[in-house]
Amino acid sequence: MILVDGQPATMVSALDRGLNYGDGLFETMRLHAGRVPLLARHLGRLRAGCERIALPYPGDALIANDIVHLVAGGPADGIVRIVLTRGDGGRGYTPPRGTTGRRLIALHPLPDLDAAALSLGICKTRLGHSRALGGLKHLGRLEQVLAADEVAAGGWDEGLMLDEADRIVEATRHNLFFVRAGRVLTPPLGNRGVAGVMRALILEILATLGLPGGETPLRYDELHEIDELFLCNAVVGMRPVSQVDGHAYAHGETPARLRAALAAAGVTWLA
Amino acid sequence: MILVDGQPATMVSALDRGLNYGDGLFETMRLHAGRVPLLARHLGRLRAGCERIALPYPGDALIANDIVHLVAGGPADGIVRIVLTRGDGGRGYTPPRGTTGRRLIALHPLPDLDAAALSLGICKTRLGHSRALGGLKHLGRLEQVLAADEVAAGGWDEGLMLDEADRIVEATRHNLFFVRAGRVLTPPLGNRGVAGVMRALILEILATLGLPGGETPLRYDELHEIDELFLCNAVVGMRPVSQVDGHAYAHGETPARLRAALAAAGVTWLA
Repeated sequence: MILVDGQPATMVSALDRGLNYGDGLFETMRLHAGRVPLLARHLGRLRAGCERIALPYPGDALIANDIVHLVAGGPADGIVRIVLTRGDGGRGYTPPRGTTGRRLIALHPLPDLDAAALSLGICKTRLGHSRALGGLKHLGRLEQVLAADEVAAGGWDEGLMLDEADRIVEATRHNLFFVRAGRVLTPPLGNRGVAGVMRALILEILATLGLPGGETPLRYDELHEIDELFLCNAVVGMRPVSQVDGHAYAHGETPARLRAALAAAGVTWLA
Repeated sequence: MILVDGQPATMVSALDRGLNYGDGLFETMRLHAGRVPLLARHLGRLRAGCERIALPYPGDALIANDIVHLVAGGPADGIVRIVLTRGDGGRGYTPPRGTTGRRLIALHPLPDLDAAALSLGICKTRLGHSRALGGLKHLGRLEQVLAADEVAAGGWDEGLMLDEADRIVEATRHNLFFVRAGRVLTPPLGNRGVAGVMRALILEILATLGLPGGETPLRYDELHEIDELFLCNAVVGMRPVSQVDGHAYAHGETPARLRAALAAAGVTWLA
């Protein structure tokens, strides 16, 4: 089911600026046992993104009510996807003033969350960068689409994407963490990639627990130097990686330790 | 009027991948005296773009028939915009296989084409770059939307966009040419910006006529060294610039000379 501006619908205006110019943002959230566990974080990121590109934010209450409507009587688990666009109007690229924008909220089935460790490839499609858009979950995901097609063609579970200096930045739909010499690390995003909600949560719990870690670049030619690798996003939580491009990794304990720490801090749905 | 897959329509599927992932390309073309003057070039670029991102190309004939349908009984001048998306389907970013995609073709009124020279500003929004997407007219135009908002806020006619090394690349909806020491030059695009149809046509006519010119970078701090500046695209042709950010330019003769040369080569609609 999809709600467009709060009403069940299957269609949107062909003049929508999200379609015509990528003029909008989105969030992809886990529905777990009838709740969206990290809703406040998702809406906080969405609101901050709206401020950054002057996109109208409809307000937490309107979105929360849409989710209630969407989920009522349906499955208790799934994916809730919010798309906010600047709606119709404006003249060419020039955005309209005083618009309320348009919101789409859809419920999708959960993907197959195989507990096994993932086998990854390296995508040929590189991540570009943009000072204006880096980190934003904006609608222009064509690089990820091209990379996801490589993942499907290669029969991989996921694919890592590199920047133009051969640094690993993220996977097509996950951020990544790696463990090296006891430190839990994630590549800095710079002006590219998506600043994931789960990534931020993991960085915070590391700091709270006093565990050594943080942001550190990871070059492709350093893949053999790391001890553990796992992917994360707000839909699947954390998923261990068994191999990337011929480099094998042990099924490490870091995701389980982090899940336990998060559960102790009240984030229980990952357990 | 808008045709969606050949039929008059005002709506498209809320699941369209163009809307949800920017998974598509577009062309913006001039309708002049009931014809699209550079149709073959536009369709050639669109087809090449489709090959680059493995987007289904519906074929010249289907698009041409849509345009006939769209224009019949309507105004003889305007803008024809084609949007090709990968349609619905796929799983997340992963594109569906064997899809025919979706095509939207819309007729829009011509903007006010004031013959006066344009007054430009410099946009704070920088152009990012992407090896995968550079030069493509893909649907993710959010940088241009943000820059166009600066143009509107500044009361400018257009705005120039710089890369992160302070090189001027293009305007929000035009490519640009500048004249320096008798040479007619345009910045190289690298992995950013749009490889415009009018830009390519001007570069070709320069070569055909044996006029000195071609691709040369233009840094922001070189704006005072140039003699003439004009913008171009396939909707407006060429438009002289009178000033950029306080640098005044004479109303040079280069656009008129190029228009005459193009007319002699059969491209008469610009005259």
